[in-house]
Amino acid sequence: MKQSLGAKPLLYPTPVVVVGTYDSHDKPNIATLAWVGICNSKPPCIAFSIGRGKHTHSNIVERKAFTVNIPSKKHIKETDYIGIVSGKKVDKFAATKLTPVKSDLVDAPYVSEFPLVLECKLLQTIEIGDHAQFIGEILDVKADDSVLEKDLPDIKKVDPILLVPETWLYYGVGSYLGKAFSIGKEIST
Amino acid sequence: MKQSLGAKPLLYPTPVVVVGTYDSHDKPNIATLAWVGICNSKPPCIAFSIGRGKHTHSNIVERKAFTVNIPSKKHIKETDYIGIVSGKKVDKFAATKLTPVKSDLVDAPYVSEFPLVLECKLLQTIEIGDHAQFIGEILDVKADDSVLEKDLPDIKKVDPILLVPETWLYYGVGSYLGKAFSIGKEIST
Repeated sequence: MKQSLGAKPLLYPTPVVVVGTYDSHDKPNIATLAWVGICNSKPPCIAFSIGRGKHTHSNIVERKAFTVNIPSKKHIKETDYIGIVSGKKVDKFAATKLTPVKSDLVDAPYVSEFPLVLECKLLQTIEIGDHAQFIGEILDVKADDSVLEKDLPDIKKVDPILLVPETWLYYGVGSYLGKAFSIGKEIST
Repeated sequence: MKQSLGAKPLLYPTPVVVVGTYDSHDKPNIATLAWVGICNSKPPCIAFSIGRGKHTHSNIVERKAFTVNIPSKKHIKETDYIGIVSGKKVDKFAATKLTPVKSDLVDAPYVSEFPLVLECKLLQTIEIGDHAQFIGEILDVKADDSVLEKDLPDIKKVDPILLVPETWLYYGVGSYLGKAFSIGKEIST
C-alpha cells in the first residue's frame, strides 16, 4: 500500500558535488549542492540548480563558466561546510584549506584535492521556481591518477558522497550490482 | 596529478529511475534512465533528459505528464531490461510482469511494485543537444508503507540503484556517513 507524502523533492539519492566559480574580483569560490544531473550525451552536458541570491549564481551569470568537482568521503566535513556558509562572507578555499586551480579550458577554478573534476562552459540558463538551472557543456574531465582504472575512474576509489533529500543524510556508494545494458537481457518477451 | 579524460558525462554516480508515460492509445510505457536530477525546491521539480526519437519523448510531448519511479535493487534485472528495449516495439509492463497504476494527480502511470513514485506535470521542455530535457513539477510523492520510517522513506529500505556512466556499472547505496548541514560546522573560519 502506498502513502501520499505530498509534494517533495524525493529523488533517492542525489549525487553531492561542489561547483567552482570565479567572482568579479577573480576570487575563487565553491558551493556544495545536490540538485544536479547529467542532461545530454552529445555534447556531454551537466545541469545544476541554485537559488538566485547565491554567490555562485551571480558568478556564473558574469563568467559563463564553472567546474563540477566530485568530492571523496574523506572530505565530507569540508564538503558539508562548503554547503553551509556563503562565499559572499567567507573565503571557503581558505577556511577548508582546499586549493583552487585555474581550469585549462574554462574561466573557473577546480578543487585540487578532489579526485574528479568537470570543466564546463555555460550553455543555457533556465528559470524555474526559486532556483535557476545552469546547463553547462562538459569540455573536459580531469581525474587523479590514483582513482583511474584503465582509462576511467573507479567509483570505489573516487568514493563519492550521496545525499538523501528531506532527511538530509549522507551515504556512501555500496556494492557492485551488475552491468548495465546487460543483466536485463535474460528477460525475454 | 590529474589526467585529462576528454569530454565525457562523468557524474559519479547517477541515480537510476524509471519514467512512466501513456502513449496516444492510452497504453502505459516505462523507460529506464539516469540523466536525471532534482532541479527546483519551491515548487519541487525534477528534470530528466531523453533522446528525441524515444517513445517516452513523444508520449510526454503529447500528454504533458510523467511519473518518476525509483526501483529497488531486487528489480534490477527488470530495470535494466526497461532501459534496453523500446516501448514502440515491446509492452514493457507485460514483459517484466510489473503493474501499471494510473496516477491520482497526473496523466501518467506509475509502477506498483517500485517503492517510491513521483507524480509530475510537465512545466518546461529544454532542447539541448541530442537530448531534450523535461522539467516536471512534482505534485505528489507516493511511498510504500514498508519503506517508511516516520514520515519519510528510509533509503536502505528503498534500496535504490546507482549507475556509473561510461563504465556502465550498477552499484547500491552504502554506509551512512553523517548529517548534512551539520557535520561541517566544526570547521571554523
